[in-house]
Amino acid sequence: MADGIAVLGSTGSIGRQTLEVAGHLGVRVRALAAAGNNPGLLLEQAKRFNPDIIAVTDSGAARVIAGALPRKTEVLHGLEGLCAAASQSGAPVTVAGVSGAAGLPAVISAIKAGKTVALANKEALVMAGRMIMGMSREYKTSILPVDGEHSAIFQCLQGQDGKAVKRLILTASGGPFLEIPAAELEDITPEQASAHPVWNMGAKISIDSSTMMNKGLEVIEASMLFGVGTDRIDVLIHPQSIIHSMVEFTDNSTLAQMGVPDMRIPIQYALTYPDRLKGLSNALDLAELGSLTFAKPDLHKFPCLSLAYDAARTGGTMTAVCNAANEAAVSLFSEKKVRYAEIPVLIERAMGAHVKADDMNLDNIYAADREAREFVLNAAGCDIRAC
Amino acid sequence: MADGIAVLGSTGSIGRQTLEVAGHLGVRVRALAAAGNNPGLLLEQAKRFNPDIIAVTDSGAARVIAGALPRKTEVLHGLEGLCAAASQSGAPVTVAGVSGAAGLPAVISAIKAGKTVALANKEALVMAGRMIMGMSREYKTSILPVDGEHSAIFQCLQGQDGKAVKRLILTASGGPFLEIPAAELEDITPEQASAHPVWNMGAKISIDSSTMMNKGLEVIEASMLFGVGTDRIDVLIHPQSIIHSMVEFTDNSTLAQMGVPDMRIPIQYALTYPDRLKGLSNALDLAELGSLTFAKPDLHKFPCLSLAYDAARTGGTMTAVCNAANEAAVSLFSEKKVRYAEIPVLIERAMGAHVKADDMNLDNIYAADREAREFVLNAAGCDIRAC
Repeated sequence: MADGIAVLGSTGSIGRQTLEVAGHLGVRVRALAAAGNNPGLLLEQAKRFNPDIIAVTDSGAARVIAGALPRKTEVLHGLEGLCAAASQSGAPVTVAGVSGAAGLPAVISAIKAGKTVALANKEALVMAGRMIMGMSREYKTSILPVDGEHSAIFQCLQGQDGKAVKRLILTASGGPFLEIPAAELEDITPEQASAHPVWNMGAKISIDSSTMMNKGLEVIEASMLFGVGTDRIDVLIHPQSIIHSMVEFTDNSTLAQMGVPDMRIPIQYALTYPDRLKGLSNALDLAELGSLTFAKPDLHKFPCLSLAYDAARTGGTMTAVCNAANEAAVSLFSEKKVRYAEIPVLIERAMGAHVKADDMNLDNIYAADREAREFVLNAAGCDIRAC
Repeated sequence: MADGIAVLGSTGSIGRQTLEVAGHLGVRVRALAAAGNNPGLLLEQAKRFNPDIIAVTDSGAARVIAGALPRKTEVLHGLEGLCAAASQSGAPVTVAGVSGAAGLPAVISAIKAGKTVALANKEALVMAGRMIMGMSREYKTSILPVDGEHSAIFQCLQGQDGKAVKRLILTASGGPFLEIPAAELEDITPEQASAHPVWNMGAKISIDSSTMMNKGLEVIEASMLFGVGTDRIDVLIHPQSIIHSMVEFTDNSTLAQMGVPDMRIPIQYALTYPDRLKGLSNALDLAELGSLTFAKPDLHKFPCLSLAYDAARTGGTMTAVCNAANEAAVSLFSEKKVRYAEIPVLIERAMGAHVKADDMNLDNIYAADREAREFVLNAAGCDIRAC
């Protein structure tokens, strides 16, 4: 079991559940990092877990929190603070639960400090997967997936013949619009897109789930984590979200990891790996469920999924562009500045405008990220005269 | 991969499929053993695989086969011949595919000779599981399951925390009578009971599958193989037979092994373990299947399943009695000397009449086996005046 953890994004969905699991297991929490948009919760977490370091993105919120805690707690702010929480705590494991591109520098700091990274931030691998996996080899650290699908694959691969992996099969609930005809998706509202049928998640990831871009990013993430080309990674619609993902081997034997949809299972596995301990979730009862269903994804209806595969095929900085364009487009959609159906259009145009770099250094990655965001903002401004 | 195998029961369902896999993998077949009721097929196998030893139960058939083969092939007969094929071939792996109690002595011979036993004969573990597992530790050999359900569990346990196993879940197709009301099961014919909806198997095991005694014996087998009490082994009806079995861990994460229903997958895994190679079966296509269904077994309708659990709870020689009474009752049913509904009644009465021994030596086990068979024959004779 992890001998102490640092939790980045502690007030978010993954962070809160990580702290719940840490409390259950009695794992010491040595650092907390959060944006600062929920200072009350962060303060509550600090009082309960008594970490050595607290990092708050917002410097004003950092001051308020520092004032409310004993002096011995180091309260830092900004990106520097986040990276310090990731790398300078006494904990051997850093749980990276900050979502979006913002989480990447902290992941890099943690790896350079030799921390095991329990990774819930898929964007880090989508933007800079080759670099991160290379760094984790160089610094002899492990990346343990926390995402449900990737944890499932990781669990299925334990003790198995790695050379014999034929396909990874990522399951997808299909999001809230699985049964809605493509034509009716035009005018979906942010509220409709944020209501995920199975998983209890943040707003951005819920919208990504509704467009299936979330699954597309997961395909890229899986490719990086497990060293399997995206041509050997399939997506399978499975609305009940009971089978979290599967590995098909060359002998046509398939291993699957299952459970009730509860993120505390993969979070706990990352903290207790390679052992397992009694968990907080309910047990799975397949007889009560009665049936599990499966279908091929409709790529016409969910063009974001195809765009992610396209980005992976192109490689280099194109996956960072796909991710950044999606973040920007979803952000505009959340502010009601673009329509739902424009999200994939904006991403596709940003990707079309990008000339990929193959030298995957951070400068190139961030330049691609910025370029894509600016492209989307400009394109949306031109198209709808509302930004 | 196995550097040569001996195949016991080579003309039966498991034996034929084992040879098909051996041919595909290029595994050398050093010994063949068969009852002799299909000498043509045995001769064909001998000519194709050119083994050093052939054992035929029937001495007449042995003479015929010896006459048709080159002198250098050693052709043996009787139980002694079977045990020699199991233990004296140059192969490190013995595939035990002789079904029923008859297979036990050969399994013991193989273990004592230090062979890895790829075990398809569930009766050996049901009759003498504690003894066999103890012997395999003493002689430092491995027992690799070939039964689909046990191979599934074995695959799911690789690389996992053995202490964290919470439950084993054996799936069951439910047999041909899953949808037939209990009242209509009274007068089922042997032909109806032998027609399994999913698996292509021998007649005895098909009838056992229809009564669910097969699953009951598998529960006992799993308990012995994996050292898990039957109170932590559940049976789950799953008519499609795609999930072959599952392991639930203490963290409520469940691993499942899946595939098309094709015995060549578990057979091949036992031969290539711990590696995997390209297989002969089709790949699984869950999207095409559409759905997998699950239900609790109806213990009232399938009393044989309860009887097996009862026998396991009693322990000692009672599981041997359960197995032998079942073999005798199924044999009488196949000869139309007892009715279908009398199978569980005869087993229950045989178990009720037995005083279990806890000293699990072979004498006690065989005595219990004989006693149960005689009891069933006598009881059937008294009841129906037709034996």
